[in-house]
Amino acid sequence: MAKSLPRLIEFPVIVINFKTYIESLGNGGMKIAKEAERVSNETGVCVCVAPQFTDLKSIANAVSIPVFAQHVDPYPPGSYTGSISVEALKDAGAVGSILNHSEKKLQLTSIFTAVKMLKDAGLLSLVCADDVEPAMAIAALNPTMLAIEPPELIGTGIPVSKAKPEIISESVRRIRSINREVKILCGAGITRGDDVYRAIELGSDGVLLASGVVKAKDPGAVIREMAEAILSFR
Amino acid sequence: MAKSLPRLIEFPVIVINFKTYIESLGNGGMKIAKEAERVSNETGVCVCVAPQFTDLKSIANAVSIPVFAQHVDPYPPGSYTGSISVEALKDAGAVGSILNHSEKKLQLTSIFTAVKMLKDAGLLSLVCADDVEPAMAIAALNPTMLAIEPPELIGTGIPVSKAKPEIISESVRRIRSINREVKILCGAGITRGDDVYRAIELGSDGVLLASGVVKAKDPGAVIREMAEAILSFR
Amino acid sequence: MAKSLPRLIEFPVIVINFKTYIESLGNGGMKIAKEAERVSNETGVCVCVAPQFTDLKSIANAVSIPVFAQHVDPYPPGSYTGSISVEALKDAGAVGSILNHSEKKLQLTSIFTAVKMLKDAGLLSLVCADDVEPAMAIAALNPTMLAIEPPELIGTGIPVSKAKPEIISESVRRIRSINREVKILCGAGITRGDDVYRAIELGSDGVLLASGVVKAKDPGAVIREMAEAILSFR
Amino acid sequence: MAKSLPRLIEFPVIVINFKTYIESLGNGGMKIAKEAERVSNETGVCVCVAPQFTDLKSIANAVSIPVFAQHVDPYPPGSYTGSISVEALKDAGAVGSILNHSEKKLQLTSIFTAVKMLKDAGLLSLVCADDVEPAMAIAALNPTMLAIEPPELIGTGIPVSKAKPEIISESVRRIRSINREVKILCGAGITRGDDVYRAIELGSDGVLLASGVVKAKDPGAVIREMAEAILSFR
Repeated sequence: MAKSLPRLIEFPVIVINFKTYIESLGNGGMKIAKEAERVSNETGVCVCVAPQFTDLKSIANAVSIPVFAQHVDPYPPGSYTGSISVEALKDAGAVGSILNHSEKKLQLTSIFTAVKMLKDAGLLSLVCADDVEPAMAIAALNPTMLAIEPPELIGTGIPVSKAKPEIISESVRRIRSINREVKILCGAGITRGDDVYRAIELGSDGVLLASGVVKAKDPGAVIREMAEAILSFR
Repeated sequence: MAKSLPRLIEFPVIVINFKTYIESLGNGGMKIAKEAERVSNETGVCVCVAPQFTDLKSIANAVSIPVFAQHVDPYPPGSYTGSISVEALKDAGAVGSILNHSEKKLQLTSIFTAVKMLKDAGLLSLVCADDVEPAMAIAALNPTMLAIEPPELIGTGIPVSKAKPEIISESVRRIRSINREVKILCGAGITRGDDVYRAIELGSDGVLLASGVVKAKDPGAVIREMAEAILSFR
Repeated sequence: MAKSLPRLIEFPVIVINFKTYIESLGNGGMKIAKEAERVSNETGVCVCVAPQFTDLKSIANAVSIPVFAQHVDPYPPGSYTGSISVEALKDAGAVGSILNHSEKKLQLTSIFTAVKMLKDAGLLSLVCADDVEPAMAIAALNPTMLAIEPPELIGTGIPVSKAKPEIISESVRRIRSINREVKILCGAGITRGDDVYRAIELGSDGVLLASGVVKAKDPGAVIREMAEAILSFR
Repeated sequence: MAKSLPRLIEFPVIVINFKTYIESLGNGGMKIAKEAERVSNETGVCVCVAPQFTDLKSIANAVSIPVFAQHVDPYPPGSYTGSISVEALKDAGAVGSILNHSEKKLQLTSIFTAVKMLKDAGLLSLVCADDVEPAMAIAALNPTMLAIEPPELIGTGIPVSKAKPEIISESVRRIRSINREVKILCGAGITRGDDVYRAIELGSDGVLLASGVVKAKDPGAVIREMAEAILSFR
């Protein structure tokens, strides 16, 4: 790859997971990706998207922002019917993959292998954790980024901006005790610009979110509000 | 969908599974799909392809032959990061999906649900079985097609054309005792036109194959040889 | 095995799944098994229990009624750390195993293999299905028994005795269209003697239940009520 | 629990995994466990056994050495048909469980949850890793012990005593950089006393082995040879 990967993502970063929502499928997904690209171009804030597999190539070809897959299988190309290889992501124009999302949990060994295969292919990894200790474990695998979803925020509806500050800052501190270099995203409780501001202020390097943007009436407006929260740190 | 599905596939049929081979990825996959389309157009024999997920949309848009996915998850659109929905297949232009390939084995309940979800969406199902009794079980779920890989042929290197005739004919007979309507493909031991001829002669409605075409020096020539074997029955 | 298997289970049968409830663990489980044995001896109705794995051997050694495992892995003895082999069940004194419970769903191929391995070892299989079509598929695999949990009853709280009769009778009819010999248990909506009566009356060969007995204040009384419902058919 | 857990296991330790070998089932397993107990009593070296599930209770009741399960499911007691709960292990008399063996790989989240559930119940965890980085990840979850199977030794047939010293010492060093307290067992390449000696000498706290003992003509003699290798460090 000609592009220098370390510069591919600039932090703090916003990563939008399209999941398999009907709103983010096909044309809907292309529209959100284009909005994300526009906000990124206008604000200079790095915004990434993770489209559905069948849209990966068309969206990666259509936008200049970094495009991630939502998952990749830890197998080489070959007799793996129904799997998705690192090579397929690269061929499609993705810069990397989310791994171990709480909706697509992986064996520890598979996370390790997939992170290594992505790295060997010059691609990035963004590994999710649903608690602090698993996040520390993931940090030991040295992925490009990890996203922590603090259990105090998932499903409770408590936004980061209203949560106890130590939930984020203490998580970041413990993860950094394992790996000082890994980039840490906040992956739960993010729906507004305030949440992004707070997540960054408390030490994280960005946010991973989904429905807050995909299900919004005006996804572009939400992305802009979040990008502006990041701009306020410059 | 405007097209009448029953007419979408004409039997005997050739289905080419691209697996995740490097030879069938991206441009390589497009080339094989175009060859399959050319042979189909020139011979009138129905040839289907099952590309890798990231190529599904571009190939379905580029060719007029039926395009299958290699797998689909039995979940509705929603919070299913890293999954592939029936809606995504339809949006990408696929006519259906392979299910339960021996490299992507599914829970019985998932096969049942996926077959139903595909049918409800107007799409086709091609369910694989690795022995006669599982094939009979699948027949009870009433998919569009099922592909049986007789254990006497998988991995033994024995081609259908050299195998004992009763391996195919007896399998077909037992499967039909459960479901007289289901279309039965032969899914192992197929590498040459002779194998296709024999499979059809012994009562199957077509073949499912992968490396025999994808890894061939001249995939188009192999597809043509197989299509001509089918033509000899007209 | 010296005992004749066909006579091991007499129909209609009551099978009590201990799950991993705390009430059915260790001494608790032994007590329920002893109650089941007492009712069986006093009424002549066949009552089976499926204890937790760690209690399988001690309970099988302590009671004369048939004891099932709740699951068995489809692997031969060998390098399968953490698995449970058919040989281990036999050594422990179990007469067979439940398979594919909705809380332990299996790949179709694994159900097929496990049913075959149990049969080859002279043991019985009781395969669960969560809808009519999967039950028909299972019938094609020819297990000793299958238990159907009609979706109209699971989780809805509707007991069999209050449900539309055709939910059971129509299921039984469709399953028998695939396999006339297989024994069919009703596996949902069973909490009282009335439910057992109704399930048998509508054509099933017995019941599979769990919390209705295990969580009861007086498990022995519930088992007796159910056994008496079966007696009324003699 | 009345017993002080830290004193339960004394290091260096020998842990014998019975897997599902036919030689370690039922009476065979009891015999090996009794041999292990005898060697432990005679040498003062801590020897633990991990029997098959159906033998767990009878062996734990028959011997005074620590007995582990080969796996435990990360679920509380309840509606988990076919699973094995921490409570069941405790009731059966086990002191803890092996987790994430390469033959029973777990999701990262499940390892985390199971380690925590075992600890909360006063039981021990022994988590396996098939490479150094996964071992480091596991160290971050703070189990009682971890066993590393260096890929340079698994399947290659190279015994620890003949391997490059840095394969063990460097692994130990990197794991300790994450967690200074965790006990580290060597889990591959152990078949003789020499291998145990070398593993301890290079910094590990014991060994986890299976066929080396279970498949031996005289399991007791092998255990004794290994215990004597440990004695030479006193």
